[in-house]
Amino acid sequence: MQRVPSVLLARSFHTTSAASSFQYADLIVEPSTKKQRLPSDPTKLGFGRYFSNHIIDIDWDMKEGWFAPKIKQFENFSLHPAAKVLHYAQEVFEGLKAYHGVDGKIRIFRPELNMERMRRSARRSALPDFDTREALLLIDELVRMDADLVPKTDQASLYIRPMMFATEPHIGIGESLQAKWACFSAITGSYFNYERGIKLLADPEMVRSWKGGVGQYKMGCNYAPTIAVGKMAALHECGQVMWLSGEDRLVTEAGAMNLFVLWTNEENDLELITPPTDSGLLLPGVTRLSVLELAKEWNVMKVSERNFTMPTLARAIREKRVHEFFVSGTAAIVGPVSEILYMDKEHDILEKLHIPTLTSKYQFHKRMHTALTDIHYGKVEKSEWQRIVEV
Amino acid sequence: MQRVPSVLLARSFHTTSAASSFQYADLIVEPSTKKQRLPSDPTKLGFGRYFSNHIIDIDWDMKEGWFAPKIKQFENFSLHPAAKVLHYAQEVFEGLKAYHGVDGKIRIFRPELNMERMRRSARRSALPDFDTREALLLIDELVRMDADLVPKTDQASLYIRPMMFATEPHIGIGESLQAKWACFSAITGSYFNYERGIKLLADPEMVRSWKGGVGQYKMGCNYAPTIAVGKMAALHECGQVMWLSGEDRLVTEAGAMNLFVLWTNEENDLELITPPTDSGLLLPGVTRLSVLELAKEWNVMKVSERNFTMPTLARAIREKRVHEFFVSGTAAIVGPVSEILYMDKEHDILEKLHIPTLTSKYQFHKRMHTALTDIHYGKVEKSEWQRIVEV
Repeated sequence: MQRVPSVLLARSFHTTSAASSFQYADLIVEPSTKKQRLPSDPTKLGFGRYFSNHIIDIDWDMKEGWFAPKIKQFENFSLHPAAKVLHYAQEVFEGLKAYHGVDGKIRIFRPELNMERMRRSARRSALPDFDTREALLLIDELVRMDADLVPKTDQASLYIRPMMFATEPHIGIGESLQAKWACFSAITGSYFNYERGIKLLADPEMVRSWKGGVGQYKMGCNYAPTIAVGKMAALHECGQVMWLSGEDRLVTEAGAMNLFVLWTNEENDLELITPPTDSGLLLPGVTRLSVLELAKEWNVMKVSERNFTMPTLARAIREKRVHEFFVSGTAAIVGPVSEILYMDKEHDILEKLHIPTLTSKYQFHKRMHTALTDIHYGKVEKSEWQRIVEV
Repeated sequence: MQRVPSVLLARSFHTTSAASSFQYADLIVEPSTKKQRLPSDPTKLGFGRYFSNHIIDIDWDMKEGWFAPKIKQFENFSLHPAAKVLHYAQEVFEGLKAYHGVDGKIRIFRPELNMERMRRSARRSALPDFDTREALLLIDELVRMDADLVPKTDQASLYIRPMMFATEPHIGIGESLQAKWACFSAITGSYFNYERGIKLLADPEMVRSWKGGVGQYKMGCNYAPTIAVGKMAALHECGQVMWLSGEDRLVTEAGAMNLFVLWTNEENDLELITPPTDSGLLLPGVTRLSVLELAKEWNVMKVSERNFTMPTLARAIREKRVHEFFVSGTAAIVGPVSEILYMDKEHDILEKLHIPTLTSKYQFHKRMHTALTDIHYGKVEKSEWQRIVEV
């Protein structure tokens, strides 16, 4: 045995191309000649089905680095059947939104946080790095070109989807010598019916993330395993899955969202609690961070990032100490949860845990939803969270 | 609380389309007009870089079911930027090989096992089911059409890559209403230099699979997180990563391969041991199964599928009880391991564990490699493992 030189223990997931980035200054614009068709009724928009007219498309190559960014007509990619993304899921993405404000200005919500996270996801996926500022300038330009498609209502928005994936045509498992960075947008209505609470299925047998895994990154690989589980949840009339991790059943996420509990804790304090991100088990959400920051700013209750287990939560619900439970995410903003179906196969128990979120006297989730959407739509100014796209 | 009706506890990942399959009888053939270029020196082939002339391409739709299969010119896919596979990694694949035998016949090694596994992967990924027999008939046809590209040497083979992925253009996370099944092939040389032993990095901080996850399925999502870890292993001059799982550091896989240890166990028996698949932590490999079946048939040592931990293995290596360690997989067949770099950051220890596989008096891994390749290339008849493609 020998001691490890500390350099050997360093965890570095840097790609070889870290020094360079694509540049907004190199942008080539090829305006679209087609217009997407949209439903005339905005309530028929749904989520992520209607796309705008343009796409950012940037190729990367290990030798050449980043090629000039293009904004061009939204159309299909031409992908080699052996492109690594189609086999080994070497892919990352982001989700953020642009809103048409009450003052007519278009605002993007905290996009620099999404770009920083995308870069972390890329590093963990052995995909190339890029510059946050350059990416934001390109996204501004994309939104500007499709500005007439940003819905002029506070019931809808333009959902922006940056993505990067490995394109090298080689089925050996390993670093990709080629990649593509792209970004398109979708005209998007409500994600949930907020009048009804969401029902969650909590089943400790189905585990989304684990210590030593990649649960904290927005990598495509975190989502594929959840789809069949989501279908199973639907059989139980649950809209989303609540993810538990480890032997002690840590509460981590719900669906693809973060989660918050407003409860009277065991010390009899009113407390807003959410699991911490340092476990590596959950995604550090932009809405999650914003909820935490606003709640701390308001200073009306204790606000904690602290781990809690499903048995602890279940006991608190049974003892009627849980007032509200809500999920947070870019698509949903804030969504109230009314029931957790706790399925403990090990003990052959199925328990319906009702949470009075919708009738809570605090209505904290509603206040938070309003506060966030007020910032989104420019009803309230919070300039450091509002990136204005000059049209 | 209430007892769970047993029907609710049933774990079913069936898709709605389970009843139907694509049909070989519906096949439409559009012969390629192009020929792929190959290096004249077969040692330059490498793994998975040179593709043959045709591809099987079959579309599926939730309403219409499977469309008629096509075999057509190998060319790029046209994929919508919102195709679910590019965001949520809804993708499965397989790897199998066709060999040009010493008698001039082309044999595919146990392909029905790959198709059965692909169907299991598909169910877990909420992708449609299909019929094993129909898939095999299509693969036969693909190989037949590119029969002149199956290398006429026992140093190379035609690697066959079936794949299925979600194509619906919808960025909501959930079941895909459209999918594509495809299969192409690559003219392929040796995966390893077998003269030198492989070095493995064993780092308990990097976890490939976990209880409640999908480690036993050939889903793309299992591979993306390994790529950056593989790069890190290369920094330590290790060719592959040995994957440990859980607090007790169960030994599971190496790289994307199964693994075997030939040792004198604590009861002083000569034993061939490999971790069992019922943990759900590792892929049930076709080569793995074949190694187990041959070893049992030969009956010269104890053969066990049993869990063992890294500390147990490390102790056995230090006590010089480990004679051979080898990996198994379709690409590598059987590959000797000569060293494990055990990196225990928790205790700031880095230990080089040398394994005398290459100089072992048993030379079991060589015997196994020869036995398998003799079957592959038709030097030995084992008809139930050899699917002959009539040309």
